[in-house]
Amino acid sequence: MITSTSNPQVKNLQQLMKKARARNTQDVFLAEGMKMFEEAPKERVNKVYLSKSLYEVKGDSFLKGLPMEILEDHVFASVSDTKTPQGILCVIRQFHYQAEDLLCREHPVLLLLEDLQDPGNVGTILRTAEGAGVSGVFLSRTSVDLYNPKTIRSTMGSVYRVPFFYTEELKDILPLFKERDIRTYAAHLQGKHSYDEEDYRTGCAFFIGNEGNGLSEELSSRADIKIRIPMYGKLESLNAAVAASILMYEACRQRR
Amino acid sequence: MITSTSNPQVKNLQQLMKKARARNTQDVFLAEGMKMFEEAPKERVNKVYLSKSLYEVKGDSFLKGLPMEILEDHVFASVSDTKTPQGILCVIRQFHYQAEDLLCREHPVLLLLEDLQDPGNVGTILRTAEGAGVSGVFLSRTSVDLYNPKTIRSTMGSVYRVPFFYTEELKDILPLFKERDIRTYAAHLQGKHSYDEEDYRTGCAFFIGNEGNGLSEELSSRADIKIRIPMYGKLESLNAAVAASILMYEACRQRR
Repeated sequence: MITSTSNPQVKNLQQLMKKARARNTQDVFLAEGMKMFEEAPKERVNKVYLSKSLYEVKGDSFLKGLPMEILEDHVFASVSDTKTPQGILCVIRQFHYQAEDLLCREHPVLLLLEDLQDPGNVGTILRTAEGAGVSGVFLSRTSVDLYNPKTIRSTMGSVYRVPFFYTEELKDILPLFKERDIRTYAAHLQGKHSYDEEDYRTGCAFFIGNEGNGLSEELSSRADIKIRIPMYGKLESLNAAVAASILMYEACRQRR
Repeated sequence: MITSTSNPQVKNLQQLMKKARARNTQDVFLAEGMKMFEEAPKERVNKVYLSKSLYEVKGDSFLKGLPMEILEDHVFASVSDTKTPQGILCVIRQFHYQAEDLLCREHPVLLLLEDLQDPGNVGTILRTAEGAGVSGVFLSRTSVDLYNPKTIRSTMGSVYRVPFFYTEELKDILPLFKERDIRTYAAHLQGKHSYDEEDYRTGCAFFIGNEGNGLSEELSSRADIKIRIPMYGKLESLNAAVAASILMYEACRQRR
């Protein structure tokens, strides 16, 4: 049992929690909580850390032989990203999808996230993407790290199941769409067409922009069609995850 | 200029930031940031606090005579709920809507939030509600305080414009709906009907449940119809704000 927060493994977990660079160098990420453990693809789990309290209640047979370590509760708290830790934290190997993995389905629904900064938004978008049957999510390199613990938590497990791909420039991906007759739609406040006037039953991709600034002119000008989500009142915009969700579920609705 | 964090006004602002009870006793809430100041109904603004830095850049003529106070930057930081404060914080009198204020429009779209706990979710729901043209939002007393600074920020100003009403028990509101022929829809994982099979063009109200537990059996059993949002994959549920947004925008779409 690890009893000190200065233990090297503990120090490393703290780095993995805080720093994208540490996660990328070690090619892993952290997933906290029982649900995130249960849904994790077990072949990707490098190690499981349990709090002493959880170990005393549940033992370790449910880990089915995965490498594990027990931490004193105060030590566990120091590597947890939550206020009331459930006492289980997994180190999981990162996914390495290729752009083509997101495009292999016929008539895919895709998302392109440009420079999204809120970890909760990106996690929620991945979660909704799974529900709406989206084939994959492309992110610009400037977007928040999807392996951020808050993002991972917000995905509610979808991070294990929805393919995603970071690219230096989202525009570099667009030729792949053209080849496959995937129509591109920029969610834009000045869009001419209301989002529900379009037909999303063949391959389609939605561009979603940064929380504060929306889509860049450069990217939105490359979309086949600019669409807007009508808004009443004095609202300037919708939350990015909400806007993405409305579009994904409209595509999903039309396809039923 | 206030130069010390032990100044009584500063102490009070800290209480108003942290404690619902302090906000309710004084019948005010805090709204931070330039956008929240600009959109605030000025007759409700009791006082504006500026950081010294902002005052030096912008002066105070834009306040048009509202009562104000300048705080040293480190003092301002101690009353701010954000990491990079914009340097403006308003004390605003709370709204006191009656249930009937939410029901006065013909064929209203309404939301009932049961026991929502995430401040960001409630704020995002209010924001989307304005965009979708929702007439009002009812909340159970056990829901998070809407005047929580994080909620206020997530509303992006909608808190000033969308009427809301807390009630001890949401079921006590339902007779008001019956009188007005407002149909009630419980968002429920076991709903028989997909949400997009219903007609929301006359008065309707959506029930949205707690993030972890969903709607209580007691409330959902009182809805006219249980609806579900179809989900692909292994997802157990959607984020509460996303689910509410999909329903509100489906009603909005049908009404166009």
